[in-house]
Amino acid sequence: MPKPLIALDWGTTRARAFLISETGEVLQRRIADQGIQSVPAGGYPAAFETLAGDFRRAAPDASILLAGMVGSRNGWIEAAYVACPASPEEIAAAAIQVELDKNTTATILPGLSCDEGAFDVMRGEETLIVGLGLTDGIACLPGTHSKWAEIKGGRITRFASFMTGEVYGLLRDSSILSRLAEAPAGTDTVEGAARGRAAVSRAGGLLNSIFASRTEVLAGRMPGGAVGPYLSALLVGQEIAGAQALFGHSAEVHLVADGALGESYGGELEAAGLKVRTVTPEAAFIAGVRRLSSGLAA
Amino acid sequence: MPKPLIALDWGTTRARAFLISETGEVLQRRIADQGIQSVPAGGYPAAFETLAGDFRRAAPDASILLAGMVGSRNGWIEAAYVACPASPEEIAAAAIQVELDKNTTATILPGLSCDEGAFDVMRGEETLIVGLGLTDGIACLPGTHSKWAEIKGGRITRFASFMTGEVYGLLRDSSILSRLAEAPAGTDTVEGAARGRAAVSRAGGLLNSIFASRTEVLAGRMPGGAVGPYLSALLVGQEIAGAQALFGHSAEVHLVADGALGESYGGELEAAGLKVRTVTPEAAFIAGVRRLSSGLAA
Repeated sequence: MPKPLIALDWGTTRARAFLISETGEVLQRRIADQGIQSVPAGGYPAAFETLAGDFRRAAPDASILLAGMVGSRNGWIEAAYVACPASPEEIAAAAIQVELDKNTTATILPGLSCDEGAFDVMRGEETLIVGLGLTDGIACLPGTHSKWAEIKGGRITRFASFMTGEVYGLLRDSSILSRLAEAPAGTDTVEGAARGRAAVSRAGGLLNSIFASRTEVLAGRMPGGAVGPYLSALLVGQEIAGAQALFGHSAEVHLVADGALGESYGGELEAAGLKVRTVTPEAAFIAGVRRLSSGLAA
Repeated sequence: MPKPLIALDWGTTRARAFLISETGEVLQRRIADQGIQSVPAGGYPAAFETLAGDFRRAAPDASILLAGMVGSRNGWIEAAYVACPASPEEIAAAAIQVELDKNTTATILPGLSCDEGAFDVMRGEETLIVGLGLTDGIACLPGTHSKWAEIKGGRITRFASFMTGEVYGLLRDSSILSRLAEAPAGTDTVEGAARGRAAVSRAGGLLNSIFASRTEVLAGRMPGGAVGPYLSALLVGQEIAGAQALFGHSAEVHLVADGALGESYGGELEAAGLKVRTVTPEAAFIAGVRRLSSGLAA
């Protein structure tokens, strides 16, 4: 019989807490800066109380599920990575119980590892991918370190990380390009994105195409406001091309994103000829913890 | 009749000054932090005096040649870019005279522009490329913003810049990888370079391969000391692949570099199957200013 659920996506720098009804409705949500790096040794029960103590009092019989870096070596307790390919049932079976207090336990979900070519790991994203409910498909989870995953026969078969968001930030804000880059105005975003997209397949490769934006601005051939959109489209386009080379050219991609990231990735995926099905990270997380929670109960 | 030569490679942050005999021997050299960004408006004659006044007194009849950013919009006077393809004679013909004092002029060399695909410019490197004395060939000038140039029929036909050195610095020192990277010890350099080299052609592309070094270290499969060499080999390998895609697969490359940069680029070029002919930046500069100086005299 389904029960209410208290679920936390507890990462390094942030935590998102949800109180979810038996039918999957989000009754309460909280986003806090209390990531695991701010929790002192032995401080997890108290940190949980701060983040979701009121959810517990509102739903005393709720199951409690924790996903993300909270299950890492630097978190509450290490829940060892499950090696791909992994089904939702296999992920749920590797979860670990911790004691919140004498009468209450919480379940910490494990992350996934993948050893295809380059070794790779994830923590937290596996829950969102499970939440997509796919039997077969490709998922894209953009971010500082974007993840792409392949799902076959209901299992996450392999995945890969891309340093796209972090490289964008370094180039946009800390490289020689930052001196030329301005806030986009007028048609800057459209122009920059179109130029960046065209540069993805340029023969000289990424290191040449990145630098080209500098010369184009210095020569008065591109506005400074187009530098950011250029870099974004170029790097996201490279990520998409890399993921397609790794996982094959799929017709459709399940994009887990919202806001500006959802817009820019959605635009670049469509420009690359892919059909995009977008799910918000919250919706994917809620569906994921409900699915994994039922696996635990089984 | 050849005369002695005082030649400065005067860049943004540094200046290199040489007193060169009629026969091409370097009689004196000086490297100073007095790049053009440290020279106030109207301060160039005084800055020159500080850098090379003693050279003038030692060789009062010497011709004076200035190359590099000193000829940019932010330098002494702008010597407009010469568009490729450009011969040494065409470069020399676009030089500009400035007055050091009532009785003495100095010659400021122009830079080059190239409009093949991406617009690109250089200032200073053209002198080193001329100094290679090539009729046909490919030159590689590694650095913060590496340059590759194609020479055909004695003219610099086209060139391209790569942001390799700067991206390496950002990743090694300012990204999430910097927390894992350590000073190489033991076999770290050899191991990191071999792994980085193997990652150049990995299907996921650069953004995936960069991130892979993090996971490999976290998993205990690569030492932290190998991160820097891995990134270096990966990025230099990408630059080489990009340059070969732009300029065609040449059998031989003229590498203008010395020290650690000469070693790492030499190693990666050879690993890519290219025959490397190395010239030091100083030797290339000296030969370049002598060649351009004779073009001026003609």
